[in-house]
This record gives sequence, structure tokens and C-alpha cells, in this order.
Amino acid sequence: MIKDKKIKNFLDTLASSSPTPGGGSAAALVGAMSAALLSMVENLTIGKKQYLNVEESINKLLKKSESIRADFEELVEKDVEAFNQFMAVMKLPKETAEQKEIRSKKLQIALIEAANIPLEVAKKSAEVLNICQEVANKGNKNVISDAGVGAILAEAALESAILNVKINLNMIKEEKTKEQFNTKITEIMDSVKGEKNDALKAVLNRM
Amino acid sequence: MIKDKKIKNFLDTLASSSPTPGGGSAAALVGAMSAALLSMVENLTIGKKQYLNVEESINKLLKKSESIRADFEELVEKDVEAFNQFMAVMKLPKETAEQKEIRSKKLQIALIEAANIPLEVAKKSAEVLNICQEVANKGNKNVISDAGVGAILAEAALESAILNVKINLNMIKEEKTKEQFNTKITEIMDSVKGEKNDALKAVLNRM
Repeated sequence: MIKDKKIKNFLDTLASSSPTPGGGSAAALVGAMSAALLSMVENLTIGKKQYLNVEESINKLLKKSESIRADFEELVEKDVEAFNQFMAVMKLPKETAEQKEIRSKKLQIALIEAANIPLEVAKKSAEVLNICQEVANKGNKNVISDAGVGAILAEAALESAILNVKINLNMIKEEKTKEQFNTKITEIMDSVKGEKNDALKAVLNRM
Repeated sequence: MIKDKKIKNFLDTLASSSPTPGGGSAAALVGAMSAALLSMVENLTIGKKQYLNVEESINKLLKKSESIRADFEELVEKDVEAFNQFMAVMKLPKETAEQKEIRSKKLQIALIEAANIPLEVAKKSAEVLNICQEVANKGNKNVISDAGVGAILAEAALESAILNVKINLNMIKEEKTKEQFNTKITEIMDSVKGEKNDALKAVLNRM
């Protein structure tokens, strides 16, 4: 499991010619880091006298960011699994017409799964982006730049994840499936329009 | 050392109320991931028949991305050290006028160091951004989206690092020092204008 790897070892494997972990897991990990940074700001706000008036909302935000972080941590592993599954199908025999047909069908299923994982990463990144501004407005001023880094990393995770959905879509044959994915991508992107910049403005206002 | 922490443990500490690691180390780590992803694409290009014509340049690019990654890995640790140094100075006694003066001087030195580390992270991120397009144009097509994720993460590392320089600048008193930092920030940002988008265009062209 990626989560049990040491940072240095993870980076070495990422850089190596081993195809996993790749950009998909990296996107999910960056997403987890964005959620973790919001949690840090929240944890450093709770229990402080001067932030008592926002404590209730910060508690709610902490529950959200920690739940999203847990989802991201799962997605890091799921991305590796989906890629390995895809690679396994690629290695299926393709000599007879029957083998070709079976392989081709299984490939499409594996590709849809491989596209679903980064789509989920994109959704979760959007969830982070949607709470960044509130954390930046209410969180402990002393660590407010960390809420800004949280917003920057959430947007990067989202953008990376969408690129990973798209590369899988390129190999998906069914037009209807492609359209469904593209509609979902558009919905996610629309849901976060301006969120990163609004969060960064809130951060700069309090720096 | 951060590099010896397991991913899960790193994320838990990042999310916790412990002030380190924070956004500064996170930026350096994301930078290391961006360089690692370029190295992965390069490693999966070298030795492949259909990429023999670009092997010489890919070898050079691999040396660069791996050298930048090593720098980022050091910067992850240095950011924690600089922050701990700053916190230690904050705790110095400030009762007598003499103590106040000593503390104030040491604080300025610690703040400059704390701003220098993310400035270095920003420089290294720019170095990654400056090779992304070439990797995207020449690298193995099968993993070209990873060069795109590399570009996205390098830009996020750069932006996060600059935010971290700025929060430290806010507490630096000497105007000349502030100006020097701001000039360097502008130089770095000018040096990467359009790089991320150009790299992403090259990726999309080959997807």
C-alpha cells in the first residue's frame, strides 16, 4: 500500500520506470495534502479564545476536511489498483477472434474503472475547494497561508485528475460513456469556478 | 526527517495541530512529485526503440529532473528546520529592553531564512516548468499525461512557495530586504510565463 511507503521511497518509485504509482495517485495524494492543510488550520483554531465565536463552524469544517482526506487516501490506493487491473487485461491473449473480443470487452470495463477513480478525485478536490474560502475567512490568522496552499493544491489535484480522466476517455469506444464523463467533468469544473481565487483573496486579506 | 515518515503518518502530522510540517514543506514535496513524474516519463522513454532519436536529449532531461528532485527533497527538511528556528526565537525572553532588542534582531534573521527556503522552492519549481514542454514533446506517448500532471504540480508548488515567501515578508521590517525578495519573485514568475499551458498543449496534442 502507498500509505505505508516512506516519503523518500514513494518519490523514488514515482520517478522510476515502474508505471505505478503515476500521475493518478499523485493527484489523489496532492488532494489529501490539500485537505490535511485545511485540517491543520482548523485544528489550530479550535480551543483558542479569540476564535471562540467561529468554533462551531470550524468544528464542522474539520469534520468535512478530515472525511475528504480519508476518501483521498483510499483513492491513492484505488488508482494503483485500477491501473494494475488495466495492465493485467492488456496482457490477455489476443490470438484468436474470440480472445480478441474478450480482451477488448474487458479492456473497456477496465478503462471505465480507470477513468472513474480520477473522476472521484476531481469531485473530492472540488469539495475541498468549496470550503477553502470559509476556512481562510474564519481560521487562525497565524497559519492562514496554509489555507491558501490548501486551495492551490486542491485546484492542482482537480486539474491533474481531469487530465487523467481524459487520457482514459481517449481509449473508451462507446460515445455515450464518453459524453457522460465529459458532462460530469463540466459539472465539477462549474461547481468550483472562482473558488481558488476567492480563497486566495481571503488569505491575502488576512495576511 | 520527513523523508523517513510513512505517507499516512506524514498526512496525519500535516493535518494535526503541530505547526510543522506545514504549507512550506507541502509545497516542496509537491515540487519533488512534479520532478519525479517527469523522471518517470523519461525513464519510460529511455531504451525504447521508437524513441531512440530523442534518447540523448531525454537522458539530459532525466539528469536535470533528478537533480531538481534531490534539491526539493532537501528543501522539504530545510523548511521544517527554518520554521523550528523561527519558533525557537519567538520563545526567547522579552522582558528587559536588551532582551527585546536581541529577540527582535534574531527574529528578523530567522524570518529571512524562513523566506529564503520557499524562494528556493519557487526557483526549483520554475526549473521544472522550464523542461515540462520538452518532456511532453519527446517523452513516451503512453505516459504523456504524467508529464502534464508534472507541469500542473510544478506550477502549484511555485504558487504555494511564493505565498509562503510573502507571509514571511509581511513580518520583515527592512524595506530593502522586502524589495529584494519581491524582485526575485517577479523574476521567477516572468521566467515561467505560459510554460504550464504550453506543456499541457503539447500533452493534449499527443494524447
